Amino acid sequence: MATKTSTNGTHHSLPEYIPNRIPDPHYVRILDTTLRDGEQAPGAAMTSDQKLQIARQLAKLGVDVIEGGFPSASQEDFNAVKMIAQEVGNNCDADGYVPVIAALCRCNERDITRAWEALKYAKRPRLMPFIAVSPIHMEYKLNKTKEEVLQIATDMIKFARGLGCTDIQFCSEDAARSDREFLYQILEEVIKAGATTLGIGDTVGITMPFEIRELVAGIKANVPGAENVIISIHCHNDLGHATANTIEAARAGAMQLEVTINGIGERAGNASLEEVVMALKCRGDHVLGGLYTGINTRHLLKTSKMVEEFSGMYLQPHKAVVGDNAFLHESGVHQAGLLKHRGTYEILSPEDIGHEKSNGVNMVLGKLSGRQALKSRLKELGYELRDEEVESVFRNFKAIAEKKKRVTDVDLKALVSDQASHAEPIWKLGGLQVTCGTMGSSTATIKLVTSDGSTHVACSVGVGPVDSAYKAINLIVKETVKVLEYSPSTVTGGTDAIATTRVVIRRENKQSPTPALNGNVIYPTFSGTGEGVDIVTSSVEAYITALNKMLDSKE
Amino acid sequence: MATKTSTNGTHHSLPEYIPNRIPDPHYVRILDTTLRDGEQAPGAAMTSDQKLQIARQLAKLGVDVIEGGFPSASQEDFNAVKMIAQEVGNNCDADGYVPVIAALCRCNERDITRAWEALKYAKRPRLMPFIAVSPIHMEYKLNKTKEEVLQIATDMIKFARGLGCTDIQFCSEDAARSDREFLYQILEEVIKAGATTLGIGDTVGITMPFEIRELVAGIKANVPGAENVIISIHCHNDLGHATANTIEAARAGAMQLEVTINGIGERAGNASLEEVVMALKCRGDHVLGGLYTGINTRHLLKTSKMVEEFSGMYLQPHKAVVGDNAFLHESGVHQAGLLKHRGTYEILSPEDIGHEKSNGVNMVLGKLSGRQALKSRLKELGYELRDEEVESVFRNFKAIAEKKKRVTDVDLKALVSDQASHAEPIWKLGGLQVTCGTMGSSTATIKLVTSDGSTHVACSVGVGPVDSAYKAINLIVKETVKVLEYSPSTVTGGTDAIATTRVVIRRENKQSPTPALNGNVIYPTFSGTGEGVDIVTSSVEAYITALNKMLDSKE
Repeated sequence: MATKTSTNGTHHSLPEYIPNRIPDPHYVRILDTTLRDGEQAPGAAMTSDQKLQIARQLAKLGVDVIEGGFPSASQEDFNAVKMIAQEVGNNCDADGYVPVIAALCRCNERDITRAWEALKYAKRPRLMPFIAVSPIHMEYKLNKTKEEVLQIATDMIKFARGLGCTDIQFCSEDAARSDREFLYQILEEVIKAGATTLGIGDTVGITMPFEIRELVAGIKANVPGAENVIISIHCHNDLGHATANTIEAARAGAMQLEVTINGIGERAGNASLEEVVMALKCRGDHVLGGLYTGINTRHLLKTSKMVEEFSGMYLQPHKAVVGDNAFLHESGVHQAGLLKHRGTYEILSPEDIGHEKSNGVNMVLGKLSGRQALKSRLKELGYELRDEEVESVFRNFKAIAEKKKRVTDVDLKALVSDQASHAEPIWKLGGLQVTCGTMGSSTATIKLVTSDGSTHVACSVGVGPVDSAYKAINLIVKETVKVLEYSPSTVTGGTDAIATTRVVIRRENKQSPTPALNGNVIYPTFSGTGEGVDIVTSSVEAYITALNKMLDSKE
Repeated sequence: MATKTSTNGTHHSLPEYIPNRIPDPHYVRILDTTLRDGEQAPGAAMTSDQKLQIARQLAKLGVDVIEGGFPSASQEDFNAVKMIAQEVGNNCDADGYVPVIAALCRCNERDITRAWEALKYAKRPRLMPFIAVSPIHMEYKLNKTKEEVLQIATDMIKFARGLGCTDIQFCSEDAARSDREFLYQILEEVIKAGATTLGIGDTVGITMPFEIRELVAGIKANVPGAENVIISIHCHNDLGHATANTIEAARAGAMQLEVTINGIGERAGNASLEEVVMALKCRGDHVLGGLYTGINTRHLLKTSKMVEEFSGMYLQPHKAVVGDNAFLHESGVHQAGLLKHRGTYEILSPEDIGHEKSNGVNMVLGKLSGRQALKSRLKELGYELRDEEVESVFRNFKAIAEKKKRVTDVDLKALVSDQASHAEPIWKLGGLQVTCGTMGSSTATIKLVTSDGSTHVACSVGVGPVDSAYKAINLIVKETVKVLEYSPSTVTGGTDAIATTRVVIRRENKQSPTPALNGNVIYPTFSGTGEGVDIVTSSVEAYITALNKMLDSKE
């Protein structure tokens, strides 16, 4: 038995992996289907390489079962599952943990054989044959009778067994809308045929928690042999109930939960791993009968960001647990309470999901924030400044806070870098001419003047006027610069009003990062602002200001 | 009694409004707190005018109670509540419906008086004094004993009554973590003091559905007088349970549900109106004991978009009910099922929440889609094209699908406009060339094409590239236009990323303003957005879109 820190923060032994039973009655398995059902989200297609990277991250997270894909869907899906099975499915950690690698397949010999070809390299391969069991699906989609569906299911479980697979999850699609007597019957038969896990799908996300409870309890009570297999629940979020339904199923005895990172998936998505896991972590010992998972929650944030980036499914700021605002407090009443006791408004700690160590509370810095709040945040970011330095940063902070609703950490880091540089500008704008429009690309000619008076001219094309101008500047300055943020301001009152443009940059490569107090590294970032009626010229001025600060900061 | 189409699609009589009871035991009130708790989301601050617009929309939606703000928080909040009370709070529709206008206040005389000053103009004003009732909040935040809190609460309910307010909701903050005996006691006393609604808060979003059930049932069973008032539930989403908890509370007898549009709010937000309402609509008659609301769900999508825009809290594509993907199907298995019977994978109909009428199923058009899928979607959008026209659109569609993961209806409409000259826009951009820089002024040459194919060219100088381009357009269009707002978006990740520009305009002079009910005048405004890597071109496209809307609106 391996040991791991459980979601509840206490050390549990990780129970031995046996397909059809869990030695510890409180341990709940997590099956992650980000790579299969998550990827079915419109527009979320990922490459094989991205899937492999996510699978590695899921293993770090301690996911029990990684559903890697649907090998019959395409050659690329097949390759992804095979790569994951070969690498991640064989990578035992020091505690003996290695994830089960699973793959979906329809109930036909071709699909099952194909899935097995991809999976068989894993140390713990699991086949997941599925078939719909609701009247509407059987009649309209499958055009088959109950008896036919029952026969196909049992035949195919036996076929999968015959391939040598001993870990088989039978997935009953649309089980939530099934006729219960038929559901009990087909589940009984697939257990007899050799299934070790029963997947129960609320495929259309229609179920309420008390119904899920009845569904799972009904299976336990009415399916002979159910006590010898694992019941798994698979919930969709069409009515906003996926997380609650998943937790309720666990309470009722479903010891495997099927979830996706960030809750991505077809339509409104699946139950979200981070919400389910954090609900169990936060309430498991108190009101959920001691249920716990093996997930190392400190990897949640990183995993979430990776999936967000690869899938292109961007999260709303108020996404529970992993959204940008999940731990932010803005109202005065809340901030006042938090400063007295974090527990007044905080039930989870940001560090638990992998946010940088924070000693204080996560309050939004805005125009009402004072020096102490600023200083405290700067310290958390790793800056130890003298009082007069704080004062200088504070003045600039107030100026920015007047214009932006929310001053971010990126802004703060730039402010600190800004106040450290005092030198004369190295480059000044001598002249600019830009042509742009619907011809497709834009051309900029730029003249920069150095402090000794020499002039340099360059031109570049780019995808727009700002892009071409920045590229022309880079040709002169000969630096590789990454633009982290480009913020033209909103102007009320017309296009001839003064607009402020702000840009935040950092050096690409080269620069050795500064180690911060908390052990993380800080890449110095630099900001510049430009003001004027011409948005292109003000963007260029902002960039040159930021560049001068960056060049000045050479260590 | 007024009649309305309920969420279940059947005509119910809208029950008469009586603060402390609902004549129909199945009717659930919806209190929307988008303008108060929603606005507390970091970065979501809105202007008074935006709040008024949202309040008007909430009234169209049929929200029972609009919580307009927290008048003591700021002068602007006070003004917003007062404006809403004066206009929306007096605007009875033909059925006699007018929303209750409510405002939050702390339990002190100054706050309550201030809230009443703002509210009293409404036909149905409601005061919402709140105080925390959990041990951790009373000890650390309030630094008060139970006895003190009890005394303050009852005194302040009496004080509110004394001002002449007969509709009072006592809000018990952090009730979910309260000592139950104390909670029952304080609720009993505030009922005696004159409270007509009991607000029960799960302020930190920690509760599981079965706990919410026990909480509400406990109050009903243990608070003398509870049968004579309305129990209201207020859930937060920190563990992803807000929607399920809200529905479960309704099942247990909480006949008012506190929600926000899009679920926005502090941290992970509040229970989301559209999820709660659609769950009741979809399951109310079947498994939720016939519960129904008065919400006209066909306004949901529009309301959601308005709040998204004004608050800047953008939704993830898989947001339930109102997310871009909520009704989209991508996987082959699902599309095959849907084409046979919509019910296989669709439990809500997109039209129910205000999507354009669709005869087919909502499948994602992407690079794998064929001519038939495109043709079918175009037909749904109202375009009847000849085969060669479809072919031309199809070629452009493929080109876009290579660049974008997903081709939207907006894209399709634009594609049709591109090739079919009989489409809506009056003016189209034929070409643009802009020169700008440090010479001082900028020059733009623009070519516009009318719907009959004639082209018009003009040039103008201006103070910047956008100003000169807009002036050149005005020379052709011959309209005097006021640009109210010009908003280029912030781009994270560089100057070659896609940026969206938005512009809001109105006619200068000429146009006779529409008199509003409150005697103020409304100038129609029109917005347009443009997207692209070139900020100048996208600004011009945004302007032309807005102009076309303006010209099209001529009475």
